[in-house]
Amino acid sequence: KKIAVLPGDGIGPEIIDEAVKVLRQVEKVFGLSFEFQFAMVGGGAIDRAGTPLPQETLELCKKSDAVLLGAVGGPEWDENPPELRPEKALLALRKELGLFSNLRPVVLYEGMEKSSTLRPEVIAGVDLIVVRELTGGIYFGEKTRQKAEGGEEVATDLLIYYEHEIERIVRLAFQIARGRKKRVTSVDKANVLESSRLWRTVANRVAREFPDVEVEHMLVDNCAMQMVRRPADFDVIVTENMFGDILSDEAAILTGSIGMLPSASLGEGSFGLYEPVHGSAPDIAGQGVANPSATILSAAMMLRHSFGYEEAAGAIENAVKHVLSRGYRTPDLATHGQMAVSTEEFGDRVVEELS
Amino acid sequence: KKIAVLPGDGIGPEIIDEAVKVLRQVEKVFGLSFEFQFAMVGGGAIDRAGTPLPQETLELCKKSDAVLLGAVGGPEWDENPPELRPEKALLALRKELGLFSNLRPVVLYEGMEKSSTLRPEVIAGVDLIVVRELTGGIYFGEKTRQKAEGGEEVATDLLIYYEHEIERIVRLAFQIARGRKKRVTSVDKANVLESSRLWRTVANRVAREFPDVEVEHMLVDNCAMQMVRRPADFDVIVTENMFGDILSDEAAILTGSIGMLPSASLGEGSFGLYEPVHGSAPDIAGQGVANPSATILSAAMMLRHSFGYEEAAGAIENAVKHVLSRGYRTPDLATHGQMAVSTEEFGDRVVEELS
Ligand SMILES: CC(C)[C@H](C(=O)O)[C@@H](O)C(=O)O
Ligand SMILES: CC(C)[C@H](C(=O)O)[C@@H](O)C(=O)O
Repeated sequence: KKIAVLPGDGIGPEIIDEAVKVLRQVEKVFGLSFEFQFAMVGGGAIDRAGTPLPQETLELCKKSDAVLLGAVGGPEWDENPPELRPEKALLALRKELGLFSNLRPVVLYEGMEKSSTLRPEVIAGVDLIVVRELTGGIYFGEKTRQKAEGGEEVATDLLIYYEHEIERIVRLAFQIARGRKKRVTSVDKANVLESSRLWRTVANRVAREFPDVEVEHMLVDNCAMQMVRRPADFDVIVTENMFGDILSDEAAILTGSIGMLPSASLGEGSFGLYEPVHGSAPDIAGQGVANPSATILSAAMMLRHSFGYEEAAGAIENAVKHVLSRGYRTPDLATHGQMAVSTEEFGDRVVEELS
Repeated sequence: KKIAVLPGDGIGPEIIDEAVKVLRQVEKVFGLSFEFQFAMVGGGAIDRAGTPLPQETLELCKKSDAVLLGAVGGPEWDENPPELRPEKALLALRKELGLFSNLRPVVLYEGMEKSSTLRPEVIAGVDLIVVRELTGGIYFGEKTRQKAEGGEEVATDLLIYYEHEIERIVRLAFQIARGRKKRVTSVDKANVLESSRLWRTVANRVAREFPDVEVEHMLVDNCAMQMVRRPADFDVIVTENMFGDILSDEAAILTGSIGMLPSASLGEGSFGLYEPVHGSAPDIAGQGVANPSATILSAAMMLRHSFGYEEAAGAIENAVKHVLSRGYRTPDLATHGQMAVSTEEFGDRVVEELS
């Protein structure tokens, strides 16, 4: 299997190193074989190649079976024009590779309760997944900037959804729900937005194909509330691109383990892009203190979704859990009585568990 | 002072009754005089007048000095077309009355910590205000629904902002910050949206008029996270309409006292519309168990912002605090050892405190 590896900026390279190390161990233990090919992306690519997503990087991704990405971005590039920002690479990768869905599972890891700002009894049992539409909506609709009458400026962004875009992501959410608690919460703003009204109509139609799955519609403002109020009640949350951006970040912080959360961006086939939910954390880059868990768990998602190696995926997930339950923590999560270890050492422990 | 009173649906009439009772007491105690005129709005108005915002209601509001609103909406009208939904009345009132700003202060009331799902140490000291733009953006931009090639439907909503719309709301936020902790967090999605880039440019320009106020820009997804992670760090949050809808509801739930939170929608002059943050709660309507605090506190905001009766406003706020600290609670907030009282009795206690 060919894996395109894009370490990116900030802590990206450090956490990717650990994920690759773990994958090499998986090769040995499970008798598999991966071909890793590295490429530039994000701020580093802007500096070295003049664009956040060089053509070679895109080509490499296209001829690979999956992409493993670290993180992009940093203050050096924050004032750049839109086309020369690191995040542009993410948007371009999603669009060019047809990755219309973003899956973000949020689970509470045992022993991690203390890192949450929510009460332990509220986050007990949190096990939800946000299914976000990733190549449509206001992210990719037409943008304009003009002079209006009187000389002032006026800016627009178009939120646009086609039926087929809604249908495929909602259907995916229902399919995922079948393998889980069989509950889908479809989030929109149907009381205000026309695109949301179309969303709701299509969601209801797709829901009829899944009579065994319960469906509920929730307004986005209410969902932002209910996530804080009763996060354990959610199973699968499906929503459009922008709402998904906001709600998946909110969901990610609930259990206090954002350093633990992986994500998968998928298209029609088995190809996918895998990356941690957290960002490039330039403030701690290069210090060997970053938490590689989310990236290692993203690699596990890759094995499952893109390669069908369920057993190896589960083995990685269990290894991470065991390392945690043995009390090892990177500094972001270490509290009294736990062993604070470096990024590299955490990766070593996971490798050890796999053996 | 002429007050247009729009009780609306669900628990609206019950909570409005208590707020009016409290205002009548304020008349006596402070030697003031209010003229209350009642009118229909929302679902009730759809049923009785065929429209959520009858012309007479709008006219009444226009010739009043302020509007006090209960809540609108209910399951009976949920399947109605857009123009015949109760919420349409809110959108129309905002636009017709030029109420471009929505202020939602979120504070932690003493003794209320137990109602929050966040840890007590995280919500200690929460005292923030969300300043939401209310008459622009995607709420009022053009909406379309068409057949695309191949026969599928496509729906669009236009997010549009003019410089002057951004400027006036951001300026208001800075003015408010001056009377508070002098910190403004301007929220946008400048890494993706053109309207957000304009927002940020204008916000920076306005910020220069307020060198004594600290300004920080935050992406909306990050803000949704940081609110849960460190809510006490925020002072004034200013943002566009849709982001404000989501973030103000998220903020409202943090302290667990959504039944306590008032809001003000203001335009250029002193005129304003005041309403509780919570909804019409049809499930508990008519049972005398609704919490009237948010509506009573909205009346206090009205006295302050629209009439300049600072003393009377403060007196109401203190009265509510005292009733709470004496252990009285409506059922939504009553926990072990507290006196659960009815909507009416809670109002009576507030009146008593004012005497
Ligand atoms: C970097 C940004 C463009 C991106 C997004 O908004 O999609 C990020 O926030 C994410 O969620 O992956
Ligand atoms: C009812 C709805 C149209 C309204 C909004 O989205 O503005 C409500 O959620 C609010 O926040 O006042």
